[in-house]
Amino acid sequence: MKIWRVTGTVVSTNRIAMMDHMPLKLLEDKKNGSPTVAVDPIGCKEGDYVLCCGSSAARDATGTKGYPSDLTIVGILDHWDGWDD
Amino acid sequence: MKIWRVTGTVVSTNRIAMMDHMPLKLLEDKKNGSPTVAVDPIGCKEGDYVLCCGSSAARDATGTKGYPSDLTIVGILDHWDGWDD
Amino acid sequence: MKIWRVTGTVVSTNRIAMMDHMPLKLLEDKKNGSPTVAVDPIGCKEGDYVLCCGSSAARDATGTKGYPSDLTIVGILDHWDGWDD
Amino acid sequence: MKIWRVTGTVVSTNRIAMMDHMPLKLLEDKKNGSPTVAVDPIGCKEGDYVLCCGSSAARDATGTKGYPSDLTIVGILDHWDGWDD
Amino acid sequence: MKIWRVTGTVVSTNRIAMMDHMPLKLLEDKKNGSPTVAVDPIGCKEGDYVLCCGSSAARDATGTKGYPSDLTIVGILDHWDGWDD
Repeated sequence: MKIWRVTGTVVSTNRIAMMDHMPLKLLEDKKNGSPTVAVDPIGCKEGDYVLCCGSSAARDATGTKGYPSDLTIVGILDHWDGWDD
Repeated sequence: MKIWRVTGTVVSTNRIAMMDHMPLKLLEDKKNGSPTVAVDPIGCKEGDYVLCCGSSAARDATGTKGYPSDLTIVGILDHWDGWDD
Repeated sequence: MKIWRVTGTVVSTNRIAMMDHMPLKLLEDKKNGSPTVAVDPIGCKEGDYVLCCGSSAARDATGTKGYPSDLTIVGILDHWDGWDD
Repeated sequence: MKIWRVTGTVVSTNRIAMMDHMPLKLLEDKKNGSPTVAVDPIGCKEGDYVLCCGSSAARDATGTKGYPSDLTIVGILDHWDGWDD
Repeated sequence: MKIWRVTGTVVSTNRIAMMDHMPLKLLEDKKNGSPTVAVDPIGCKEGDYVLCCGSSAARDATGTKGYPSDLTIVGILDHWDGWDD
């Protein structure tokens, strides 16, 4: 699992039915790569450092078996010093 | 899920039978990497910013169980400011 | 799915039994990265631009359920302008 | 499987229920990339060089079928010379 | 599947039980990236150029259903010219 920082929320009204109403969070990683979105079954706040699970495990980790996710927040880190930008 | 911009359409007449007639969209990400194609079960237009799901979840997200996809568009973003090229 | 150009063929006589006799094509992508090989259930020619499916979907896309592939050619593009080297 | 060095531990009190109490280790690879976390079913110490298994295999490798992991430590290397930083 | 060169062997005495005694080979790719290890069900020698299968297909390719591998050697190339370092 990689460590990400939550930077915001994204909304997609026009989406496939399987996505339902699960919250979607915008994330950034250390490398400032492509903007990335994860499903959030926990309820994170902006600025939280979180662990995300990808691969096939991302699906069930949402709490809904077979949910269409390839990246799901599975935990908020208690302590993390952040990183140099 | 990563955020991509739809830049066009691709056509493949000579394809495996499992692919059927699902539309294929050409995408670009922030980094201007290798040209990438996703299955589009929603009906996106050129210029749309979309969320794509990869990994094993890309298959069922097409709406056809076990469809041969490793990247499927799962939603169009309501608002996205784009990125610097 | 990413877009690749077929550049040749590879042969592996000493292989696991599950691989059987499926043709293997050598591919290059835009970035000239590590040499990559895909299973070819279609019959591509050198110079063809093709779509490849990775992830778990690469297995069934070969036409043989559970085949040991992580990259399978699923279609030949009708039109593609290529890329600058 | 890639080779990683264990550099510490992370704690996430606010996590999904499926994660239970499995220890989480902080890892670094040769390239000093994004900070990465793996599930540790073995009991590694800081400084150990370990093999990690990703992809769908990371789940069962934890010892709990279907565990939400995309990276799991599967072995400690007996000998490894390390790498230049 | 990517092409790799076998550069050695690694040993992990302290490992999860599911790994059993399958040989582990050390690999390098063209880009000289992070050191990588693959399960070897074929019996490769140092210097061999091999095809490796990743993703979920890496598991069954070992010959043991559900084996904890994310990279498995599936064939030795008959001819390969190598690459510039």
